[in-house]
Amino acid sequence: MELELSFYQVASIVVAVLAFGTAFWLYKWVVKQPSSNQRIAEVGKLIQNGANTFLAKEYRALARFSAVAAILILLFLPSPIWKGDVLNNVVMALSYIFGTVFSALAGKVGISIATIANMKSAEAATKGIKPSFMSGYRGGAVMGMAVVGSSLLGVTLVLVITNDTSALLGFSFGASSLALFAKAGGGIFTKTADVSADLVGKVELGIPEDDPRNPAVIADNVGDNVGDVAGMGADLFDSNVASMAAALVMAVSLDKVYGGTINASMVFCYAAIGLLSSIIGVLTANMREGGSPTRALNMNTYITTAIYGILTAIATAVFNLKWPIWFASTIGLLVGTIIGIATDYFTDDSKKPVRMVAKACESGPAFTILSGTSYGFMSTIPSMVGIGLSALLSYVICDRYLGDGYGMFGIAMSAVGMLSIVGMIISNDAYGPIVDNARGLVEMGNLGDKALEITDSLDSAGNTVKAITKGFSVGAAGLTVIALLGAFISEVNLAAVDMGIVAAGESYLSGFDIMNPTVFFGLLVGAAIPPVFSAMLMLGVDRNAQRMVAEIHRQFNEIIGLKEGKPEAVPEYDKCIEIATNGALKELIPAGLFAIISTLVVGFVGGVEAVGGFITGNIVSGLIFALYMSNSGGLWDNTKKYIEAGNHGGKNSVAHKAGVVGDTVGDPFKDTAGPSINTQITVVTLVASIASTLFLAFSLF
Amino acid sequence: MELELSFYQVASIVVAVLAFGTAFWLYKWVVKQPSSNQRIAEVGKLIQNGANTFLAKEYRALARFSAVAAILILLFLPSPIWKGDVLNNVVMALSYIFGTVFSALAGKVGISIATIANMKSAEAATKGIKPSFMSGYRGGAVMGMAVVGSSLLGVTLVLVITNDTSALLGFSFGASSLALFAKAGGGIFTKTADVSADLVGKVELGIPEDDPRNPAVIADNVGDNVGDVAGMGADLFDSNVASMAAALVMAVSLDKVYGGTINASMVFCYAAIGLLSSIIGVLTANMREGGSPTRALNMNTYITTAIYGILTAIATAVFNLKWPIWFASTIGLLVGTIIGIATDYFTDDSKKPVRMVAKACESGPAFTILSGTSYGFMSTIPSMVGIGLSALLSYVICDRYLGDGYGMFGIAMSAVGMLSIVGMIISNDAYGPIVDNARGLVEMGNLGDKALEITDSLDSAGNTVKAITKGFSVGAAGLTVIALLGAFISEVNLAAVDMGIVAAGESYLSGFDIMNPTVFFGLLVGAAIPPVFSAMLMLGVDRNAQRMVAEIHRQFNEIIGLKEGKPEAVPEYDKCIEIATNGALKELIPAGLFAIISTLVVGFVGGVEAVGGFITGNIVSGLIFALYMSNSGGLWDNTKKYIEAGNHGGKNSVAHKAGVVGDTVGDPFKDTAGPSINTQITVVTLVASIASTLFLAFSLF
Repeated sequence: MELELSFYQVASIVVAVLAFGTAFWLYKWVVKQPSSNQRIAEVGKLIQNGANTFLAKEYRALARFSAVAAILILLFLPSPIWKGDVLNNVVMALSYIFGTVFSALAGKVGISIATIANMKSAEAATKGIKPSFMSGYRGGAVMGMAVVGSSLLGVTLVLVITNDTSALLGFSFGASSLALFAKAGGGIFTKTADVSADLVGKVELGIPEDDPRNPAVIADNVGDNVGDVAGMGADLFDSNVASMAAALVMAVSLDKVYGGTINASMVFCYAAIGLLSSIIGVLTANMREGGSPTRALNMNTYITTAIYGILTAIATAVFNLKWPIWFASTIGLLVGTIIGIATDYFTDDSKKPVRMVAKACESGPAFTILSGTSYGFMSTIPSMVGIGLSALLSYVICDRYLGDGYGMFGIAMSAVGMLSIVGMIISNDAYGPIVDNARGLVEMGNLGDKALEITDSLDSAGNTVKAITKGFSVGAAGLTVIALLGAFISEVNLAAVDMGIVAAGESYLSGFDIMNPTVFFGLLVGAAIPPVFSAMLMLGVDRNAQRMVAEIHRQFNEIIGLKEGKPEAVPEYDKCIEIATNGALKELIPAGLFAIISTLVVGFVGGVEAVGGFITGNIVSGLIFALYMSNSGGLWDNTKKYIEAGNHGGKNSVAHKAGVVGDTVGDPFKDTAGPSINTQITVVTLVASIASTLFLAFSLF
Repeated sequence: MELELSFYQVASIVVAVLAFGTAFWLYKWVVKQPSSNQRIAEVGKLIQNGANTFLAKEYRALARFSAVAAILILLFLPSPIWKGDVLNNVVMALSYIFGTVFSALAGKVGISIATIANMKSAEAATKGIKPSFMSGYRGGAVMGMAVVGSSLLGVTLVLVITNDTSALLGFSFGASSLALFAKAGGGIFTKTADVSADLVGKVELGIPEDDPRNPAVIADNVGDNVGDVAGMGADLFDSNVASMAAALVMAVSLDKVYGGTINASMVFCYAAIGLLSSIIGVLTANMREGGSPTRALNMNTYITTAIYGILTAIATAVFNLKWPIWFASTIGLLVGTIIGIATDYFTDDSKKPVRMVAKACESGPAFTILSGTSYGFMSTIPSMVGIGLSALLSYVICDRYLGDGYGMFGIAMSAVGMLSIVGMIISNDAYGPIVDNARGLVEMGNLGDKALEITDSLDSAGNTVKAITKGFSVGAAGLTVIALLGAFISEVNLAAVDMGIVAAGESYLSGFDIMNPTVFFGLLVGAAIPPVFSAMLMLGVDRNAQRMVAEIHRQFNEIIGLKEGKPEAVPEYDKCIEIATNGALKELIPAGLFAIISTLVVGFVGGVEAVGGFITGNIVSGLIFALYMSNSGGLWDNTKKYIEAGNHGGKNSVAHKAGVVGDTVGDPFKDTAGPSINTQITVVTLVASIASTLFLAFSLF
């Protein structure tokens, strides 16, 4: 095997290595920050151990699952081993394993740094807001750099080594399937702990958040790490890989048709520039002492976006690349920002929706739920229109000015553009749980009111910024999956030629007609998958939380002096961590399997047309449910905080109680089900793509 | 103009007249039942006046709206009056008006009988369950017979007089647009009153349901009539007309292609047999003294279904009709029943979901909402798969055995089959609010505990049966709209030939390719409409209920002795009715207009392809949201009743309070937003069909 590397591939590898270097430098910087408080070290250690234990158990379970999946891939994909070329199956299986390992590593790196940065940020809060912010932010950035560096490196290596775009889909499927379970498992863990801790602590006993008497408090902090850091890292690793894979599948096939390698080169070029822009953004990130952390985070995003736009424009001009593609990628990034702003409108406490829901809280929890659900429903439309327009414009421009086949590639590049600054996004996102943890450590370490105030304001900035980053990831998932649908068609056509169903050069499938009843059947069934998938996860949280609440009650009843906070009464934190861990592991597999198996069933019943409909129904309803659940959840969270800030009667008023109900409902909405749907959509599409040969060979209709 | 009537059209008119006769006989029977109680007559009169006042105001508003719509139709549809044949526009506008008038009449008839039957049923409850049941049931059946008779008559007359299937679509659009507003307006009225009465009465003051001291109690009873009777009647009138219209559009065009009139004949034949079966079912309906009312109602449905199956099979054999079409219609009816049974599983209190949610209530309202939402999400899958399978099987069988163009007609006939027993369904459905009202009258008239027990059991049967009938209407709406999508394509192709875009005999459009970016754009936008539409209605209820709660508080504070129930203290019932009326009228127009206008915007932006995607996205997400909201709502209602029956602590326990929160959230879900979505889907599709020429002529992409 001879490796040929183009200039752009070499550049991608160099930038990826640069990202690793940045991550390493930031890591060293964070570790070097002072830590002297004994109590913080103790509690921090407990969190670290809890997170590592969960991750180890989860990865052990997922390793078994992935091993089975790899064997099945080896036997059946892309075609049964006894029918096709054995080498293809080996490459696919290896790419799959490679994808799962990379994804797992991304989570592991995130956890390692986050559980150090939280302590540093907590301790720095005694000195001022700036050092505390910098520890939190740079901790998050380690994760951001590592994840995006490894996704760019992984994609480049797989393509260079195998020279086969199907292998890229296998790699992407490995990453997504691991992300699906990691996100679901982490999401169930974190919300089990959060909901139970709040329910017994805040609602029943009236003790503050993060009170060390609460046996679930460490589990809650562990949850922030395993759900919001590791899960989110795996999720965005997966989105990033999927968007690049979809674009490359199309680019390579266009290059075959039109000659040259310019299209594939553009994917690498823009992705590398995106990562480079993120590196610059991360390294220059700063905040003034006394400044606003939200402003600092948003400023980073805008700066990175601008750098990306300028650098890609220069590259397009200098290297004589294609302007319509540049346009598609830029429009993707712009629409991402617009979606983010719309999301912000529905979840920010200075805007009408949160204000109205807060007012409705005065009439009791039923009105909190009704109005919050309504605004969540409404919040879907700007994003749906935005994603639709971005796909439409990218397609039309690229198709008109570049020719046949470029329309779909334009959509794929729009997704790449939207995710170009993902390094920045992950850094901002991981900052959230780190400072959330830091706040807990400040409370448990008794670092004083000023430090608490500082970490409170850092924490609240994390919540606001999350809304914008979620907009990016939902939008990008939508565009990526549209592009993957194009990749699915390419795969089907390749397979049809291989199987002799159509002659070489002819297409078996050119699209999916809604009026074809198998397509329509797939559409209806596919649309039902995201709500059912969400329901399975939420019921998992529900069941698990009931178990944990019982355990917390037991400890408060049996451990003498715990309620009163006597120093000799120590809660058994590890029991709660154990319940959350075991429950999450038990509940995460069925939901993920359900999504994968229903894709296969629809494929074997209705064939490739039904699968096309299924994927489409899945995207459409998946986007709607992801947006509704994430936004309602964010809105309820901020409504509660707004009331707690003294509005509508403040803490312990009727409105506050109703607000807490809303927040408790919103927690699994926004942190378990909503964000898992993104990954579910990608997984379903990738399963369909790599199993397309099987559907062509065996189907009922 | 010469009228030609086929045998089947004459038969349809005869059966329709038979249905009117039956309705008249039942009406006389109900009026003849004894009524002597002074107090019941008084309160009954209040309800009657309230309902009539609301209806008069609503119809006045809608008449203005319809007049504007009719003028717009006259000017622009099917094509601008200065471009096409003026006569076409006149026919379309007249058909539209005809549709609105018929639909309004259906609502009016329903209200008239329901506000008499409730008093009769209440008084009969002092004698036993059988006479009380019969009064309620036969009152409902008057409505059922009148609605279905007039829809069959209307469709037949429009086709016979105009001999133009576009006019049928205009008639159907008239019926749907009125139904949309009637359903939304009635839904907002009824839930405003229900939620407010419960919130102040049951939750704050702890007085029983239907207590005459509550100023909102009459408004609540009026609401049952205007929402559940008039709104539901308009809704099912509309579904029934739409399903026949869609089938006839396709049948007539098939008859043109293949010669003869057999296809159109079959539509009339099966529809007439469906109505005949319902007449037989309604007239033979009975229950034993001491029997179960649920059993009696369900038995009716099964008997009618069996009669329909047998009679249509005989007709198919005797008149030499087409067996594949018979198969399609029967499969529709069967799938309807299966969907009903699945719905029943998710909402019946003897099944797992209600039991689990009731248990979750012990942990507080957040868990009630989370688990109820989850089961609502899950409940979507059996129906989506059922509708998909029914469409797939009908299409495949008819396409394979009858030839080109028959597949879509098979789907349309599947919808006709599902709605064939709609006379029965409406009778069962209208029974519900009548006995609910009767229960209120028994309470307010002090007719004693035994009578209360009897009406309680009749009421609860109404709730259970509702689940099954809702399954039918959602399923039928799904199939009808798929068929209407076919009708939309026919309309576009006719228009394209007229406009000279393609040559006569050629097609401009044969389907909608998902990979076409304008189709995809439409798909994404269309999918966002149902949640936004639902949100607008729910926020309407929310705002309106807040106004009414304030009024109830005012009365309890200002009217001396009201709280204590002193006889001289009479609440001002009419104030509450006025608030509900004015609020409903204010809130109903924007939501309906939003759905209609967004269809037009998408059409003018993306053209007919985008509209095809838009309709599809609208159906898919519309079905999901209708199912989720109806089923979660029904589940919460029954959960509350299950707890009130003494489980998990019974009345006034923690679980009960949580159950009441669930029920309050569920009320607008299941009685305002959920069932309005059905109509919204139909309206959007019909708007698109009749405006297709405009989209062809003017569009951006």
